[in-house]
Amino acid sequence: MAMDWNRMSRRGVLTGAGAGIVAGSTLSQTALSEPRARPDGRKLGYAVVGLGSYATRQIMPRIAQCEHAKLVALVSGTPAKLEQYGAEYGIPKTHRYSYADYDRIRDNPDIDLVYVVLPVFLHAEYTIRAFQAGKHVLCEKPMAMNSAECEAMIAAGRKAKRKLMIGYRCHFEQYNLHVRKLIAEGAIGKLTAISAESGFYAQPGQWRLEKDKAGGGSLFDIGIYSIQAARYLAGEEPEWVSAVESTDRSDPRFATVEDRVAFSFRFPSGVVANCLSSYSSGHNHYRATGRDGYLDMEPATAYEGNRLFKGRAYAGSEAVVLPPPAKLQWVGQMDHLAECAMRGAEPIVGGEEGLRDIRLIEAILQSAREGRAIRTAGA
Amino acid sequence: MAMDWNRMSRRGVLTGAGAGIVAGSTLSQTALSEPRARPDGRKLGYAVVGLGSYATRQIMPRIAQCEHAKLVALVSGTPAKLEQYGAEYGIPKTHRYSYADYDRIRDNPDIDLVYVVLPVFLHAEYTIRAFQAGKHVLCEKPMAMNSAECEAMIAAGRKAKRKLMIGYRCHFEQYNLHVRKLIAEGAIGKLTAISAESGFYAQPGQWRLEKDKAGGGSLFDIGIYSIQAARYLAGEEPEWVSAVESTDRSDPRFATVEDRVAFSFRFPSGVVANCLSSYSSGHNHYRATGRDGYLDMEPATAYEGNRLFKGRAYAGSEAVVLPPPAKLQWVGQMDHLAECAMRGAEPIVGGEEGLRDIRLIEAILQSAREGRAIRTAGA
Repeated sequence: MAMDWNRMSRRGVLTGAGAGIVAGSTLSQTALSEPRARPDGRKLGYAVVGLGSYATRQIMPRIAQCEHAKLVALVSGTPAKLEQYGAEYGIPKTHRYSYADYDRIRDNPDIDLVYVVLPVFLHAEYTIRAFQAGKHVLCEKPMAMNSAECEAMIAAGRKAKRKLMIGYRCHFEQYNLHVRKLIAEGAIGKLTAISAESGFYAQPGQWRLEKDKAGGGSLFDIGIYSIQAARYLAGEEPEWVSAVESTDRSDPRFATVEDRVAFSFRFPSGVVANCLSSYSSGHNHYRATGRDGYLDMEPATAYEGNRLFKGRAYAGSEAVVLPPPAKLQWVGQMDHLAECAMRGAEPIVGGEEGLRDIRLIEAILQSAREGRAIRTAGA
Repeated sequence: MAMDWNRMSRRGVLTGAGAGIVAGSTLSQTALSEPRARPDGRKLGYAVVGLGSYATRQIMPRIAQCEHAKLVALVSGTPAKLEQYGAEYGIPKTHRYSYADYDRIRDNPDIDLVYVVLPVFLHAEYTIRAFQAGKHVLCEKPMAMNSAECEAMIAAGRKAKRKLMIGYRCHFEQYNLHVRKLIAEGAIGKLTAISAESGFYAQPGQWRLEKDKAGGGSLFDIGIYSIQAARYLAGEEPEWVSAVESTDRSDPRFATVEDRVAFSFRFPSGVVANCLSSYSSGHNHYRATGRDGYLDMEPATAYEGNRLFKGRAYAGSEAVVLPPPAKLQWVGQMDHLAECAMRGAEPIVGGEEGLRDIRLIEAILQSAREGRAIRTAGA
């Protein structure tokens, strides 16, 4: 049986300011052990929170490939899932938690890291409760329902002196990293323009189509890849946002969330980006164009099989093929938080990075709603 | 020696209303012969006005391939060009005109059609003078400096009872036509989104970088291809326009004209289009995406070598290869006006079509300037 998300408490996260959000928590932050270096080579332990398809199909099968981390605990509201995956991954009953039990992870020293793979409306709450239990957190994107929640999550991590990282796997994916390297090396000359499209046909009946669970529609779910791509390809923050939304409100899928959004960024250097987010058609593509050519990725942000092409207008393009990566993107991502926790370093995609995207999503939707360009706060 | 465009008179076209624009013209419209059907199979005669590189390299070499038209006269301000191309194409001295002589084409019954291939600021004037000489007109795009000029040109054609066609060669290019056919046949399902990018690095020192000769910058010159593509792929007119401009005014190329413009359209059906126009990098690409896949063209609007691909997100794409066309795009275009003239039919890309694009360019620039979405008059 699927989890009844409706019955799960929001615990005031939307309005809370990051402190004392969990009713009755008397946790003393100072009583927690500090992040430990592991000179003995012991791997840090992940608790995976939420056993949906992304966690069970993409994340959990890859944790064993991590250099610095291992799977040690599972958290789910569905006892059958705890039983099934607990057996599959050799997780003892003492390390299986229901959501009601979740705060007890503080008493489990095997758990160093918590990977939050829940629907968006639960990100803030389960991240903050993990911090209050003294754990580091890897939280899936989009970071949260809105920027206020993001700020509360960041504050909770700071208070707990624990690391917060957002699940931007493309920062650990070899082709996406290679494109950035090629741009930096001048392979296409001075960068002038970016286009990025992300989308899929969203089938009805999913939590992602409910605004109070997903935060919003295609922008939160898939358009965030185009926002990310525009930012990491440009290597700077947008100063202007302009957007046009197209949502057929007579389609039952879009009773509460947006469908298509065409949005543009202008960056301080003059680079412009045209982006698309869609719940009505498949898109997984981006292109960075410079004075001397372009770099094209299609698919650009897939789980596997990303393809990179280098070309010039009129002259066609050629595939750029890389050898197999040392670490798959999920492995690199999970190892990164483990290393940051051990070394006391900040993750390259921390809470501030997640907050930037949520602020941009808010600016994009505001631009579409008000029919005007929005100057971003980050500019 | 290059022509001194600065010395050429504008003759008040910018403010004129289409009537009596040519000072001293006493031409009686009713005295002109009506467009004639050609049951004898005689080809109609084109006068090419302006012997720049597009006219001499792309147009004139192809006129001989026309079924219904032939080259009969040349108009240029450069005597050496008249001599050179007159000899090359067997045009007698009686059919070679300077700009000062231009109005005398009215006395030459061999000339049925005038192809205006001048810089943009001369389009309205030379089109209107051709109408006043009783000729049909094929005028290169962009149609004119602004929508007022376009309206004057349309009015002049109506008054003269002559046909006006704009040089949108892609409406006669087999791959562009095939994409439209595939979309109409449902090859990609319900159309959801379009992206179109047009651009090249504009070298300094050209008339295209002077606003008072070109009307504007990249949008007028090359971005108009993306505007066209968005419109003919969608098969409808945009109702909303939103744009962001990026022009480095410290670059001497951009003293008076715009460089990059990222603009979006929303169409009444809900289709959204993301477009780019650039004078700082090469782009010649568009994509139409529907629920069931996409059609990609790259190059999309080239003189030759356009390539069409049909694909799906994540699944890659395959080239769609057509047999060689019966008529090259220039040939189809020039034959079309000849046929319209013979049959009294309206060209598929008449003055109203050119006016639509100029109005959209004006809306795009207004949106960028005012930082707000513009509802188009045509919606």
